[in-house]
Amino acid sequence: MAQTRILSPAKNAYQYPLLIKQLLLSGPRYNPDQEIHYANRSKYTYTTLVERIHRLANALTDAGVKPGDTVAVMDWDTPRYLECFFAIPMIGAVLHTINVRLSPEQIVYTMNHAEDDVVLVHDDFLPILEGVKNEIETVKTYIQLTDSDSAADTSLDTAGEYEALLSQAGTEFDFPDFDENSVATTFYTTGTTGNPKGVYFSHRQLVLHTLAMTGSLAAYDEMPLLRSSSVYMPVTPMFHVHAWGVPYAATMMGIKQVYPGRYEPELLVDLLKEHKVTFSHCVPTIMQMMMATESIKTADLSNWHVLIGGSALTKGLCDAGAKLGIRMYTGYGMSETCPLLSATHLNPEDLELPLEQQTEKRVKTGIAVPMVEIEIVDPAGKPVPHDGEAKGEVVTRAPWLTQSYFKEPEKGEELWQGGWLHTGDVASMEPDNTLTIKDRIKDVIKTGGEWLSSLDLENLISQHPAVAGAAVVGVPDEKWGERPYALVTLKPGETASQEDIQKHLQQFVDSGDINKWAIPEQMDFVDDIPKTSVGKINKKLIRDQLK
Amino acid sequence: MAQTRILSPAKNAYQYPLLIKQLLLSGPRYNPDQEIHYANRSKYTYTTLVERIHRLANALTDAGVKPGDTVAVMDWDTPRYLECFFAIPMIGAVLHTINVRLSPEQIVYTMNHAEDDVVLVHDDFLPILEGVKNEIETVKTYIQLTDSDSAADTSLDTAGEYEALLSQAGTEFDFPDFDENSVATTFYTTGTTGNPKGVYFSHRQLVLHTLAMTGSLAAYDEMPLLRSSSVYMPVTPMFHVHAWGVPYAATMMGIKQVYPGRYEPELLVDLLKEHKVTFSHCVPTIMQMMMATESIKTADLSNWHVLIGGSALTKGLCDAGAKLGIRMYTGYGMSETCPLLSATHLNPEDLELPLEQQTEKRVKTGIAVPMVEIEIVDPAGKPVPHDGEAKGEVVTRAPWLTQSYFKEPEKGEELWQGGWLHTGDVASMEPDNTLTIKDRIKDVIKTGGEWLSSLDLENLISQHPAVAGAAVVGVPDEKWGERPYALVTLKPGETASQEDIQKHLQQFVDSGDINKWAIPEQMDFVDDIPKTSVGKINKKLIRDQLK
Repeated sequence: MAQTRILSPAKNAYQYPLLIKQLLLSGPRYNPDQEIHYANRSKYTYTTLVERIHRLANALTDAGVKPGDTVAVMDWDTPRYLECFFAIPMIGAVLHTINVRLSPEQIVYTMNHAEDDVVLVHDDFLPILEGVKNEIETVKTYIQLTDSDSAADTSLDTAGEYEALLSQAGTEFDFPDFDENSVATTFYTTGTTGNPKGVYFSHRQLVLHTLAMTGSLAAYDEMPLLRSSSVYMPVTPMFHVHAWGVPYAATMMGIKQVYPGRYEPELLVDLLKEHKVTFSHCVPTIMQMMMATESIKTADLSNWHVLIGGSALTKGLCDAGAKLGIRMYTGYGMSETCPLLSATHLNPEDLELPLEQQTEKRVKTGIAVPMVEIEIVDPAGKPVPHDGEAKGEVVTRAPWLTQSYFKEPEKGEELWQGGWLHTGDVASMEPDNTLTIKDRIKDVIKTGGEWLSSLDLENLISQHPAVAGAAVVGVPDEKWGERPYALVTLKPGETASQEDIQKHLQQFVDSGDINKWAIPEQMDFVDDIPKTSVGKINKKLIRDQLK
Repeated sequence: MAQTRILSPAKNAYQYPLLIKQLLLSGPRYNPDQEIHYANRSKYTYTTLVERIHRLANALTDAGVKPGDTVAVMDWDTPRYLECFFAIPMIGAVLHTINVRLSPEQIVYTMNHAEDDVVLVHDDFLPILEGVKNEIETVKTYIQLTDSDSAADTSLDTAGEYEALLSQAGTEFDFPDFDENSVATTFYTTGTTGNPKGVYFSHRQLVLHTLAMTGSLAAYDEMPLLRSSSVYMPVTPMFHVHAWGVPYAATMMGIKQVYPGRYEPELLVDLLKEHKVTFSHCVPTIMQMMMATESIKTADLSNWHVLIGGSALTKGLCDAGAKLGIRMYTGYGMSETCPLLSATHLNPEDLELPLEQQTEKRVKTGIAVPMVEIEIVDPAGKPVPHDGEAKGEVVTRAPWLTQSYFKEPEKGEELWQGGWLHTGDVASMEPDNTLTIKDRIKDVIKTGGEWLSSLDLENLISQHPAVAGAAVVGVPDEKWGERPYALVTLKPGETASQEDIQKHLQQFVDSGDINKWAIPEQMDFVDDIPKTSVGKINKKLIRDQLK
């Protein structure tokens, strides 16, 4: 360790722990009257947001919540949830954002594992909790969330309804200072194997993530993410990696926010139109659903910028969006990474091209954002060349990565090898530092000593005009180690045979895009491809079914 | 202290100390071929910048620099200085940015006080150091900086010339990790009383300052400070509070940078034109000098955005700039604050007004930037109303304020009272959170139990058509405590009497802008108003001369 000159470690006034409460300073200061909307139901100002956060802190404290406790939330995407993003960590408690799409068994597993003390639960999710009530171990009380005049009847032991509790609570809460390394949030990853694993983030980590996100995304030449005139609407759930952290950044900048509640495609498109939304983040599936609505055809979307993540942004989707005027960007990250690691970065020259010609750059995983180190490494941990061809596992260092998995230190050690967080993603890196994710390391098909990307193959199969979707997994093969196997769904009314698909792939062999051993000789046509709770292809299930 | 759940303090891989080396990650990654210019002398790319920073680290290490040492720089604004901003702290040493405008006696005082080990010095400043050579106590060696083919002859004991040393040095330096609270930079405030005082900033503080600055300024709707297409040229010296921290932010974002060297107004305007500069920061005096050049009349400045600080941006200057298309903003901060605390914040509605009508908002001190707390307090430390009228001392908390004054802890305690840094500035705050600095607390004229702003009075006097400039100080008065005294300079060829000025001021009494007791009955007309080394009115000297 270098012998630098170190500031006095005493608790002096100049020391300023990084706390989530500081993210709430500037937004209401810039724009006290700026609006926060709950779909087409209600709206309030930033001034009211601050008052409600103070009220919520008092209400939670009245309900027995202490610093260090864990408070869980099961809600749709609402301003209530935004209030929880702030109030719960700001009193020193841990916010557990429950993934409401998990099975009831998995939900109760995560609640017990996180040791939830209090749970805020929307009427719509009461049946889930009532069904597993006797398995819930640590919860002392529930607070009900409702979008009706009165909360639903329930057999759960509740402390009251959210709005009623807030209206009775004091309007001033003296939020304490504490160690910036205090845990602020926790939630569970939705892997396809084993139990969900808990990741967790500190106040310091969330503040740094917010600051870096604000700088890097606000600096986009064409992308009005976080400027005074921006309008933000999340379209990835708030339980999922802090809605990618954008609610914190948007609030810090004081911009208009629209929370859509449930993701009903027609409603989402209506809100886009009504509020002239300029920035959203979204997974491809939901984007496809929105683009399939009738009402989107009459929307002016030329000012809507969308960060796509969760699954790869395909050229087809990006092109279709461009035809509607939608500007899409790829963002890359994961539950373990808070999440932002990299995003599409367009130079002024790129932007001079017609939107349709920008797709090539927009579908790549982009360039690492400020403060993030990304490398691609071989199985021995050695960096592979940045030539756009060589594939390696993506490893990263950054100030906002989960320390471990909660109460599973051995899995945490596996995550952190050699001082880098191992993402489990396989990617190539171009000489201009653009990352392209090729596959999950466990989904890569190891055939004949080479790594074949299942994602690449799915993309190419999907370009056949009759194909709606494709899933490719590796199946054991005595001679080659593994061989690709494809599940294919066709568009309504279309037909195609295995030979048609193989012939279609042959053109990519001829053009040098893939090797001839990439063409699968095993293929099945199905009505539906198995998906996980967050809409990703469930390759584990496909492999299990093949056994 | 709240009992939060705190992350393990062990030195695990997930921990990521905030270090200046991380600010160098993203710029070269976004834009490896982006250019950094040295006036019209030379240019190189970000890739070269990184290589030169590694070479400089090796050269300094070869010259004996170790972590914890202090390395001082006396240079004009050059890419060399930018390299020093990174390489010196990145090896764990402390960068001392010497204020070359101080007197030789003050310079040697700061060098001895900071305990400089190595000094990088430009040919132009050799005579200063040679003149005080025998008083320099701690310097072991010098490195020469030159803009000629070979460095000037000197009686100082030098280790060689910068470029020669870099060309011989290795291109790879393994920059270590260390405690983020390690001191990175130090420099001396230029008060009008006593010896200069040393402030100092840690790696953590500079990283946080950079991140918050990037987010807050990049988010401006109209201000392309830190977008891919921006072009940055500093016009406040790099020795002065890290050139307001912008070189770090610009480098992090990978934008084009133009370092002007010396501040010759014609040269600055030529560089503006040639490089289509979009962002600068500047003190009013230099802006006036640039606006007085012939060549500015033929420049298209409609895309030039300038953050004005150091002294107040007057309406006159802002209006004159607007006529040329220049967009000016007020930034507020000081040596002790790294410096950024607040800046003009224009809402979309403000921007719809013609540029000339935006002056009112642009000349105020703006709204505190993210992560910064600002309050205005009375002498008892109690906040005064935010009504745009009540005046109080500006106090602040933020993650990037100096801990104390180096080796003067008692002055540091005076700076930090009640857990807030006391700026010594008097301001009012409007209900919309806009701060307006009224005066230095020591320059406020306490007359008849009220605080009269010397700055306000100077501004009003300056609006007389014959007046070039004015300085107002308080002089002791038996009846009123203090009374205002004005020093006035007239424009060439213009005349005005004391009565003319008083009559001019009477209209502001009539309109209710000032009270009638604000009109000074003592006034002198002079050729020059005494200024400090950084161009501020030297009120201490004026008061001393009056005694």
